[in-house]
Amino acid sequence: MTLKRLAGYFCRLSQLTGEKVPEISSSQLAKMMDTNSSQLRQDFHHFGGFGKPGHPYDVNLLKEEFQKIFGVEDTVNIVLVGATAIAHALIENATLPLLNIKIAGIVDESPENIGKKYDGVEVFPIKKLDSLISKHNIKIGALCTTEPEKSMQLLIDHGIKAIWNLTSIYIRQPDGVVIRHENLAAGLMTLIYNMNQ
Amino acid sequence: MTLKRLAGYFCRLSQLTGEKVPEISSSQLAKMMDTNSSQLRQDFHHFGGFGKPGHPYDVNLLKEEFQKIFGVEDTVNIVLVGATAIAHALIENATLPLLNIKIAGIVDESPENIGKKYDGVEVFPIKKLDSLISKHNIKIGALCTTEPEKSMQLLIDHGIKAIWNLTSIYIRQPDGVVIRHENLAAGLMTLIYNMNQ
Repeated sequence: MTLKRLAGYFCRLSQLTGEKVPEISSSQLAKMMDTNSSQLRQDFHHFGGFGKPGHPYDVNLLKEEFQKIFGVEDTVNIVLVGATAIAHALIENATLPLLNIKIAGIVDESPENIGKKYDGVEVFPIKKLDSLISKHNIKIGALCTTEPEKSMQLLIDHGIKAIWNLTSIYIRQPDGVVIRHENLAAGLMTLIYNMNQ
Repeated sequence: MTLKRLAGYFCRLSQLTGEKVPEISSSQLAKMMDTNSSQLRQDFHHFGGFGKPGHPYDVNLLKEEFQKIFGVEDTVNIVLVGATAIAHALIENATLPLLNIKIAGIVDESPENIGKKYDGVEVFPIKKLDSLISKHNIKIGALCTTEPEKSMQLLIDHGIKAIWNLTSIYIRQPDGVVIRHENLAAGLMTLIYNMNQ
């Protein structure tokens, strides 16, 4: 769970650089993240610690540290499979560009979707997947269809080894492939459970 | 984390009832969830345990147990704030109806969005929020705008105390309110981190 919290701090710091906030104290940042500064310092310590005790963090410098840790110093291009509403939602997400993430394109098998643009991101036919991947040096694919197994296999067949599954349908992780299940439905269930306690 | 995994099993079981699968063994279910049957039994034990050792689970009965645990035996209605792509993605999500979740409506402040329908779900003006909440006995609101603080305050002012934040922008949890941050951008960062190890 530390990793997810670290990723959360990184998102918040990226948003702060977007808002041109120059400095932030550990307690201010902790408050924004709905945690306390002791937890925050413990989380940071896990990755070697940053800043000087008693001094606020330089937001830009701290963001750069996180960029190194997560390996997003340069733009990371991703491809989406399926021209669906969740694909559109990723394109609309205002935080991803602040994290150096670029959605290079969508591939879709329905002829009627080809050539459409979602906020400037184009939908390509499956046969263009190879050229899209090599042109943008893509290593990550996001599953946005209702057939995650099929879409994952398509991506694996084209050399992609990091899969972001946004379908709320679990798929088994093949050897040598990294999957992140972003199960929105399961997230809502945890909220309902906590609400009922 | 056990709760999130439990929610994941519940999603999978709901999908299996949708596919009319009558029975499943703990090892089959564990495989689908990319875990092992020892972990699954440990997770189930946490909530009192289900089924008989050595027998497969009755999928419908097990789903009913989960419905009780999560408190979704009857339909749970939710309202979305913001007629955005992520709102549309929640409406398109095929797992939510299997979990007894119904999206009762969207509220939006832009006059040009009012009256639009996303797969049958209507967009209402803010002034209809009260009647929407009382008509459908809504207790949960989802933040789908780029201004989560403002949308959360709107919901709290109308008596909603469970907030599902889908904006990737953190907000501080007020007293007496339960929040689930569904931070897609942070999720992608953990995938990239793991890919780089």
